[in-house]
Amino acid sequence: MSRKWVWLFRDGNGTLRDLLGGKGAGLAEMTNAGLPVPPGFTITTETCNEFYRNGKQFPDECMEQIQAALRDVEGATGKGFGDPANPLLVSVRSGSKFSMPGMMDTILNLGLNDVTVEGLAAATNNPRFAYDSYRRFIQMYGAVVLEVPKDRFEHALAAQRRKAGVDSDPQLAAEDLQAVIAAYKAIIRTESGRDFPADPQAQLVGAIEAVFRSWNNDRAIVYRRREKISDDLGTGVNVQVMVFGNMGDDSGTGVAFTRNPSTGVKELFGDYLRNAQGEDVVAGIRTPKHITEMRDDAMLPGVYDEFVAIAERLEKHYRDMQDLEFTIERGKLYMLQTRNGKRTGGAAVRIAVDLANEGVIDRKTAVQRVPPGDLVQLLYPVIDPKSGEKPIATGIKAGPGAAIGKVCFTALTAEEQGKAGERVILVRRETSPEDLRGMIQAQGILTSTGGPTSHAAVVARGMGKSCIVGAQDVVIADDESHFMCRGVRVNVGEYITLDGTTGNVYVGQVATVEPTLGDDFDTLMTWSDEFRTMGVRANADVPRDARKAREFGAEGIGLCRTEHMFFDDPEHPDERRTRAMREMILADGVDARRRALDKLLPFQRRDFEGIFRAMDGFPVTIRTLDPPLHEFLPKEAAQIEELAQVTGRTVHEVEQRIESLHELNPMLGFRGCRLGIQYPEITEMQARAIFQAAVTVAKEGVAVHPEIMIPLVGDVNELKAQEQIVRSVASEVINGSGVDLKFLVGTMIELPRAALLADQIAEVAEFFSYGTNDLTQTTFGLSRDDSSRFLPMYVEKRILKEDPFQVLDREGVGQLMEIGTERGRKTRPDLKVGICGEHGGEPSSVEFCYQTGLNYVSCSPFRVVIARLAAAQAALATGERDR
Amino acid sequence: MSRKWVWLFRDGNGTLRDLLGGKGAGLAEMTNAGLPVPPGFTITTETCNEFYRNGKQFPDECMEQIQAALRDVEGATGKGFGDPANPLLVSVRSGSKFSMPGMMDTILNLGLNDVTVEGLAAATNNPRFAYDSYRRFIQMYGAVVLEVPKDRFEHALAAQRRKAGVDSDPQLAAEDLQAVIAAYKAIIRTESGRDFPADPQAQLVGAIEAVFRSWNNDRAIVYRRREKISDDLGTGVNVQVMVFGNMGDDSGTGVAFTRNPSTGVKELFGDYLRNAQGEDVVAGIRTPKHITEMRDDAMLPGVYDEFVAIAERLEKHYRDMQDLEFTIERGKLYMLQTRNGKRTGGAAVRIAVDLANEGVIDRKTAVQRVPPGDLVQLLYPVIDPKSGEKPIATGIKAGPGAAIGKVCFTALTAEEQGKAGERVILVRRETSPEDLRGMIQAQGILTSTGGPTSHAAVVARGMGKSCIVGAQDVVIADDESHFMCRGVRVNVGEYITLDGTTGNVYVGQVATVEPTLGDDFDTLMTWSDEFRTMGVRANADVPRDARKAREFGAEGIGLCRTEHMFFDDPEHPDERRTRAMREMILADGVDARRRALDKLLPFQRRDFEGIFRAMDGFPVTIRTLDPPLHEFLPKEAAQIEELAQVTGRTVHEVEQRIESLHELNPMLGFRGCRLGIQYPEITEMQARAIFQAAVTVAKEGVAVHPEIMIPLVGDVNELKAQEQIVRSVASEVINGSGVDLKFLVGTMIELPRAALLADQIAEVAEFFSYGTNDLTQTTFGLSRDDSSRFLPMYVEKRILKEDPFQVLDREGVGQLMEIGTERGRKTRPDLKVGICGEHGGEPSSVEFCYQTGLNYVSCSPFRVVIARLAAAQAALATGERDR
Repeated sequence: MSRKWVWLFRDGNGTLRDLLGGKGAGLAEMTNAGLPVPPGFTITTETCNEFYRNGKQFPDECMEQIQAALRDVEGATGKGFGDPANPLLVSVRSGSKFSMPGMMDTILNLGLNDVTVEGLAAATNNPRFAYDSYRRFIQMYGAVVLEVPKDRFEHALAAQRRKAGVDSDPQLAAEDLQAVIAAYKAIIRTESGRDFPADPQAQLVGAIEAVFRSWNNDRAIVYRRREKISDDLGTGVNVQVMVFGNMGDDSGTGVAFTRNPSTGVKELFGDYLRNAQGEDVVAGIRTPKHITEMRDDAMLPGVYDEFVAIAERLEKHYRDMQDLEFTIERGKLYMLQTRNGKRTGGAAVRIAVDLANEGVIDRKTAVQRVPPGDLVQLLYPVIDPKSGEKPIATGIKAGPGAAIGKVCFTALTAEEQGKAGERVILVRRETSPEDLRGMIQAQGILTSTGGPTSHAAVVARGMGKSCIVGAQDVVIADDESHFMCRGVRVNVGEYITLDGTTGNVYVGQVATVEPTLGDDFDTLMTWSDEFRTMGVRANADVPRDARKAREFGAEGIGLCRTEHMFFDDPEHPDERRTRAMREMILADGVDARRRALDKLLPFQRRDFEGIFRAMDGFPVTIRTLDPPLHEFLPKEAAQIEELAQVTGRTVHEVEQRIESLHELNPMLGFRGCRLGIQYPEITEMQARAIFQAAVTVAKEGVAVHPEIMIPLVGDVNELKAQEQIVRSVASEVINGSGVDLKFLVGTMIELPRAALLADQIAEVAEFFSYGTNDLTQTTFGLSRDDSSRFLPMYVEKRILKEDPFQVLDREGVGQLMEIGTERGRKTRPDLKVGICGEHGGEPSSVEFCYQTGLNYVSCSPFRVVIARLAAAQAALATGERDR
Repeated sequence: MSRKWVWLFRDGNGTLRDLLGGKGAGLAEMTNAGLPVPPGFTITTETCNEFYRNGKQFPDECMEQIQAALRDVEGATGKGFGDPANPLLVSVRSGSKFSMPGMMDTILNLGLNDVTVEGLAAATNNPRFAYDSYRRFIQMYGAVVLEVPKDRFEHALAAQRRKAGVDSDPQLAAEDLQAVIAAYKAIIRTESGRDFPADPQAQLVGAIEAVFRSWNNDRAIVYRRREKISDDLGTGVNVQVMVFGNMGDDSGTGVAFTRNPSTGVKELFGDYLRNAQGEDVVAGIRTPKHITEMRDDAMLPGVYDEFVAIAERLEKHYRDMQDLEFTIERGKLYMLQTRNGKRTGGAAVRIAVDLANEGVIDRKTAVQRVPPGDLVQLLYPVIDPKSGEKPIATGIKAGPGAAIGKVCFTALTAEEQGKAGERVILVRRETSPEDLRGMIQAQGILTSTGGPTSHAAVVARGMGKSCIVGAQDVVIADDESHFMCRGVRVNVGEYITLDGTTGNVYVGQVATVEPTLGDDFDTLMTWSDEFRTMGVRANADVPRDARKAREFGAEGIGLCRTEHMFFDDPEHPDERRTRAMREMILADGVDARRRALDKLLPFQRRDFEGIFRAMDGFPVTIRTLDPPLHEFLPKEAAQIEELAQVTGRTVHEVEQRIESLHELNPMLGFRGCRLGIQYPEITEMQARAIFQAAVTVAKEGVAVHPEIMIPLVGDVNELKAQEQIVRSVASEVINGSGVDLKFLVGTMIELPRAALLADQIAEVAEFFSYGTNDLTQTTFGLSRDDSSRFLPMYVEKRILKEDPFQVLDREGVGQLMEIGTERGRKTRPDLKVGICGEHGGEPSSVEFCYQTGLNYVSCSPFRVVIARLAAAQAALATGERDR
């Protein structure tokens, strides 16, 4: 038996989206539901794939099946395809599994030629309509199928307007349109070297081929990349009897959503236009009317009520908000499309909650309906989409939301001006921990290098700050008086606006709109937590962030980086932490190092106390010092001189010491536990600060659960060495304090070797936390700071499906996580396992963490809600699979 | 039944080295062979381990077993331990499985006290001898057991010499020695707070404890680190009846090897001293006589012949060259030790071959006898060990052998002066490919940073050039007029000497001795190849190295790096390769890049032709361009200006472009196949050069087997993209050439992800080659260029057992190799798998590669012989295990 390449609408149904595409499945479902759908058929997505496999040849028997379907449609309409007297005209539209609006091609009015146009004129008693339809068809067909440049047709049409002395196309008379038709045919002959095909069968084959080809046109490919749609799906082709919205004022066409896709409010949302075809609505020459005005449209009596009834029926049928297309031909309503409508994050939340409350869906379904990543849109102010401004540059979106401020190029000026109440945007090649104070004061951060997990990006996200990184077109002048960008000069002090949600940079102050979380959001999160089984913690380094994390529902801190504690605290500038840290680094011998560390201890202790209080009752995972020492050393002459004075050395000696700490690959250098093993007194001081703080707050009645985490372990002996220090300091501090303090010692798993030898490491570690940022770097041999030079190209060329710093690489990095978890728990069955890399707040990665059996994910405070929702969805998805 | 902690010599045998230690097993074996060995017993190494496990307590029943053994010895000698009339005196010596000469403690004359010394005086009729023995015993016991500073005893002895008015100890009379004994006892009372123990049983217990303790003294630990001896073995303790070489001129003591340990020549090699105890020989106050002089020593009639007979018997018995210790007491010869003697690499080869030719051992055993790493000593000139010079600095030994030359700090001056016939040493902070010409002209290279696989080290080894890297004490002055090193100033132009075999740097010209390979070496290598099953190739980039590799027996090239082909060739300076490369890097668009690449193609083709000819009949693995582009760009103003002129840009633009290529972690950056994917035309040009060259030489009759290797692959799609280019160019070049050329396309496995996804990668790759340098870097998250800051500390503290850049990390990196090989061959059973990292020439790593089932190892030409021998030994070891 041959395969079924062609499905009549009445033979299909809504479950066949893979095979028929979304549009085809919707048309079939509506047809079978008895809705007014012009008859037609769908050529399957499999045909498209076969077409490509066969070197762009149709599969055997496909043509015969098309002919059979055509004959069926002829029978249903009483018209004949190519019949001079009563010609059947069809539309040919693409339709893949996932909606790709405007990305592929459509051809209307197919079946017209010099003969059938006269039949249409006679049948409709409207020669102008017939010639206009023919003209439109030739133009669309010429452009789409024969690939004639569109402007050639526009020129000819304009020439005819001039000749006829009219301003707009509707003013052209039937004779004018006949002249246009002649001109169009000449253009096609010249441009494509062949005549416009008069034979409707040839027209149809050409149109179907063109739709298949359009699956792989540039904009479709780009769209699929962005929306993460597979290239393998293929498109269906829908051939449908034409109905005409342009047959007079009792005709029309429109688009409508069953609920507001921007807000989610339960109201019909859309437009219609009388006496028009779809392309007229899109062209924007005429202003359409709001769909509700149709109720009182005297020329379209009863249509609105019929449409509302259909819309309600379809929404109930599909149990989701629908995106509908319709045409009215001489007072009769035809449905041309129904599909689940796209919506904003806010609308998604509201619609899901409303549908559940209305009893249309259950709570599980509601929780599964909202893409977790879309919650981001709810959390940050956004550029007003109506502003219409054009960006001067586009970078990688690193911290979402909008930010407006005056350009400044140094952290120092950002800090000063920020404190003075100015709004500033810090524009840098890249940022470093020394820039932290400036970053805190800045509204947003823009860098010309770096990727989505570069310092600027990580810090900005952690702070909930708008940030764009890797905006390569931004070239900062050496004298830092301005930056240039695609020929535009932007001076220091000028206003710019960042849209961190899109990665766009604008000159001037672009209007923004504020987000609002609401009751629906709270409801959805409550429902999520009912289904969620995996914990969600936050990465937070200071009490303020810890409090914010709790507000968002974090159940502990999964990563408290302590490096900031070695830098000056803007709130306590007198503490001179950086100076003490630098003294420590330059110290000769243990005693001098201890003296410098002793200065830092009280400050760290106070920081820990604040965090413990904020996380009362929840665990707090504290990572010991991680970054390479050279990050703490000064670069500027004045600071070097000061350091020389403080430490009693010559400037030259200090410079030499700084030079000696320079590393070729700092990411793979002297950092992490390597520091604590070389200088055990650093770990000792940090452990002392942690346990002293814990004892203090425990006495206040705070429930404190410290988890000390050793970074960059590659061998169990490293962990052993550090663990011994931590435990010995713990005994010293806790014993005799009168406090019964429980704590854990564990490690980051962020090196391939650690994952591979997890069985050994778990002999010492009481918990693992995957540091997937570094694990991704080492597994791929890929520096996140340098990858922007080629990683976008990799994703573009489909070498990699995703940027692995954004979406966890399941095959490689994920495999190491599976190995590490399995082997770790083999040694220690109750091993607590979490993740604290950036992936902990990315939905697909959260799903993987759930599948791998992690106990919790940890992410920046602002992403906690995303992780909660994603974790709930992962649990529900697994539950469904297991049913 | 209780465990046997104590073994009489007559109960043991030579196979019990693990339990009795080398010395104890040797004494047991000699005793049972009927050789003249003073009776005694051995306390086992297990006792030592139990001692440490028990918190430094002897295990139960050990003491009773010691008493029983003592009673046996008393019976054999007719003397009594502590018997005032006829006292039994014993020596207490350490003895672990592997000889650790001088690292642990020895006590002689134990059993003496104020009473027994009189018995000894009476029994020997030699009071001076008795008091001298007592004095020596107190001194040794005080220092070793009671830990009294040695100089306290020396001071007292010197004071007595002054008092007696004599110059040397032998001149002291019996009364003087009695005074010394009194003084010594007073010292012990003051320093240790207790009396010298008079009870021989207490003396014995203290001495045994001290030997156990000495297993963990500093020098023993350091020695074990260096020699890679496990800390877990423990030491045995040998308690043996004293025989005295200091009882007059018919007595004596000596040490001898059965063959020359420096040259391997079959001759008795050693010294003896009449009327002496062992410590006198070591002290070096008296000059010993050559062992052969004993033949005609009238005072020791017949002893020489007896000794020679014993020596020959022992060598035959042990089937290896023996290191013997003996004492003659009143004309009677006693054997105190036999063990396999340590020897130089050259001696090892000669002895192994000689013993096989003599029929003492078979060829398999001969091949297994020579430590492969010791062959290095045969290959390079070495510093004359007699020079006695003191090093001013010590770095990491990177390229073996000695080098002498004048200090110069830039590659340019090194090149100029080298070409002018000067011997120069290039001294740099680090080197880069741009320094290559200078490095070629230099005798040796010294860097202050970098590790054993840094650029300088890799290049130097490849060229067989002496090199020391990471000599951190060397601080090069900013104006490059001199370097400072531990306070010593060395000016530019001054002579220094590098000993690349030890890592020592000397001021001035230190004498060297030339190595000689000989017939024995050739014989051993021929025998090795008979047993070897794994292939050995060489890493070679130029025809000269390829020829050298064949001389050393390489069976192909496992890694031909092509990056040098993008730099100017010293032999063809007119080709301006670097300039063309830089034009390519700066080019806007594909066409400009192609034009620049076209200039390079003929040069690369010529290079490949030379290599193919040198490797006629053998495979040549060529790696496409790997290093980051910024390595090719100029740093000096003049060169930047030139580049600006050539490319028609401003200096500022060129500088900006250079700046834009800067990377924070170049090791993880834009390099390897990432270059070829971004710029396919580079791979295309290289493939064209390879296949054009192959066709040319094939027409000459050369058997050419190119294997094109794509570097830094982490995903099969990367390999696919590059493979398609290579195969398409290959078809283009080969088709119609009339040559039937077979070639392979494969990849480096040098990223963890590649090993983990080897099953996918093998769908495209026809071979794998482990790049273990980079694989070690990424698996450990450890930059080889930066690791010198802490890696030595890691090995010192036993965090890691070995430097993983020197000895392959089997647990982590090796695990990835096992995974990669298994998964790769699952997809493609005939997958060829090799290694081309530095480990390919390191014996333990070669053994692992054999065990993992690799088809070949590849290493620098000079290490090919090491790899051949190591591979043979691995095959033999497995064969023996499987028997």
